[in-house]
Amino acid sequence: MNKYYMKLALELAEKGRGNVNPNPMVGAVIVKNNKIIGQGYHEEYGKDHAEINAINSTKENLEGSTMYVTLEPCFHYGKTPPCVDKIIECRISKVVIASFDPNPLVSGNSVKKLLAAGIEVMVGVLDEENKKLNEVFMKYIIKKIPFVIMKSAMSLDGKISTSTGESKWISCEKSRQKVHKLRDEVMAILVGVNTIIKDNPKLTCRLEYGKNPIRIVVDSTLKIPLSSNIITSAKDTRTIIVTTVYAQMSKVKELESKGVEVIVANDKDKRVDLKDMMKKLGALKIDSILLEGGASLNYSAIEDGVVDKVQIYIAPKIIGGVDSKTPVGGNGINSLKDAFKIKNISVETIGEDILVEGYIEESDKEKCLQV
Amino acid sequence: MNKYYMKLALELAEKGRGNVNPNPMVGAVIVKNNKIIGQGYHEEYGKDHAEINAINSTKENLEGSTMYVTLEPCFHYGKTPPCVDKIIECRISKVVIASFDPNPLVSGNSVKKLLAAGIEVMVGVLDEENKKLNEVFMKYIIKKIPFVIMKSAMSLDGKISTSTGESKWISCEKSRQKVHKLRDEVMAILVGVNTIIKDNPKLTCRLEYGKNPIRIVVDSTLKIPLSSNIITSAKDTRTIIVTTVYAQMSKVKELESKGVEVIVANDKDKRVDLKDMMKKLGALKIDSILLEGGASLNYSAIEDGVVDKVQIYIAPKIIGGVDSKTPVGGNGINSLKDAFKIKNISVETIGEDILVEGYIEESDKEKCLQV
Repeated sequence: MNKYYMKLALELAEKGRGNVNPNPMVGAVIVKNNKIIGQGYHEEYGKDHAEINAINSTKENLEGSTMYVTLEPCFHYGKTPPCVDKIIECRISKVVIASFDPNPLVSGNSVKKLLAAGIEVMVGVLDEENKKLNEVFMKYIIKKIPFVIMKSAMSLDGKISTSTGESKWISCEKSRQKVHKLRDEVMAILVGVNTIIKDNPKLTCRLEYGKNPIRIVVDSTLKIPLSSNIITSAKDTRTIIVTTVYAQMSKVKELESKGVEVIVANDKDKRVDLKDMMKKLGALKIDSILLEGGASLNYSAIEDGVVDKVQIYIAPKIIGGVDSKTPVGGNGINSLKDAFKIKNISVETIGEDILVEGYIEESDKEKCLQV
Repeated sequence: MNKYYMKLALELAEKGRGNVNPNPMVGAVIVKNNKIIGQGYHEEYGKDHAEINAINSTKENLEGSTMYVTLEPCFHYGKTPPCVDKIIECRISKVVIASFDPNPLVSGNSVKKLLAAGIEVMVGVLDEENKKLNEVFMKYIIKKIPFVIMKSAMSLDGKISTSTGESKWISCEKSRQKVHKLRDEVMAILVGVNTIIKDNPKLTCRLEYGKNPIRIVVDSTLKIPLSSNIITSAKDTRTIIVTTVYAQMSKVKELESKGVEVIVANDKDKRVDLKDMMKKLGALKIDSILLEGGASLNYSAIEDGVVDKVQIYIAPKIIGGVDSKTPVGGNGINSLKDAFKIKNISVETIGEDILVEGYIEESDKEKCLQV
């Protein structure tokens, strides 16, 4: 039954997706005499945690009850008082936890406090499932660097556009809807300036009730046209341009006057050093980025080791063309043994397309980070 | 129960794969009083048909029995006497058939003859399944043009080699084994001369007990080196080179002296006209071809409408590189609405790779044929 209740708690946690960043999604279920008497989840950043919402959802006496919660309850005063104290105060008898707090400085502290208060504790129930659900949080809380998802849509022969540059639309309507859903869930979306020049996108989430992600453009020399859709709408939707010292200061000022935030990152061969950029974006509390780059930016991001997850939509069509663009360009690797390996692959059908998802192998990323 | 017995008959039919071309794979099961009393399949080209093998597998009196057979029994004298007469002679009471003979000239004739002999007949049980199993035969018997499977192995970002040309191996061991199995099943394998020059492959089936396919090379000007592995082994394994009138006659003679068959096809812009080539290969009773071309030949084949099925192995790795080769090159289409659509997509995991299979939409092929 532990797994059953924890699965319910994970389903509750999932409801917070997109609204709690950079906090984790957390769900909690309270059970007494084999009956669910309370439940809750962390609904919005800055508001009550899951444990408190679950406790507040019931009027029953909690003595003798078991709480199932997907993450070790918090130990410190943050935006809200520590949940661990509230659990002790309510005399909950047993706490079943999916995952320890990933922050090594506090991990286990609440468990110890619960045990010291005579509460029975069990940790590790659906731990992997919770870590997958909270993959963004699990990275960000430790490294303070955003979790980056590289998304691309290609034909079955690996093309993201025709030889003449037509790219609207490779993927089917359902796939594009799913991408808009993801834009609603991540904190930011990242493209290169060439995408802005070529497509002049709005980079908004087109879902009803969806929220727009922060829009980030990599533009090493600030060649972005001031008339671009994302510049003219920068006062409505937060927009960040990352550049280098090779940009004109006057253009920085112009952009800032239009409501754009300009960040100057370190450069590498006169171009934005993407690792430094990610650190700076992480410092702005951006925990998750959807990279919708062109071939060149995608390769730089993978080569620099800043990509965590890849999402490739494959449309059942053949485009051909030696000059047609592919999802990942740049110099490419020379030798197959150096290929970037993708692990934990999953395959899903979305409308008529195939979605392949996976994670860049950590060793490949480290290899890059050492360079 | 009809489907149950027909499924058994289809499983028997499948056992003939690779050994009966250009005949169809056929299986037969004989049932009497709810008991299987006989079964058989077409084991080898030129040998007995499935019906005869099933009848010969039992000593019981067939009166009152039902035969389940995956294809309408043959009507004419070919390499063996007509099965329809043998069924009547044995006094089988009922015949359940998956598919009519696809040849419109004889389709239905045997059914009529069985009915006229007072035998009960049912047609259409697992018809689609049988047509899929016999997709090669179903095309070849009508059009006398080989069924062509284009196979390629690419990375998750659509590359078939690194920017330096390294391509061994993109796909995993299990995928390569599956390709060798397919080489054992098709009648011929087709590559362009550039693949011979670059990789000098043997193009054999490396399975134990596997048989080698006929090796076909498209070489419009006969630039193939005489020292190539496939030339030096042409006396052991049938090898065909398809060229045009732009080749040197002296080279034709040299190749023929080494055991190579040289076919001169019509040309199109000084290059082999692939449609004409397929007609000529069909006339040689080649019913199935595995196209393992490079990017350029693959695009020509798709553009010329000679490809029926595509098989793309996708390896979970990222290679990158604007100059890295992709599965389909050539000029490519200009406009996305002209993309070649792939229908009846299926997705399968092979080792660590993903195999995507599908069929080129007939309307797209016809569009090409009309050009």
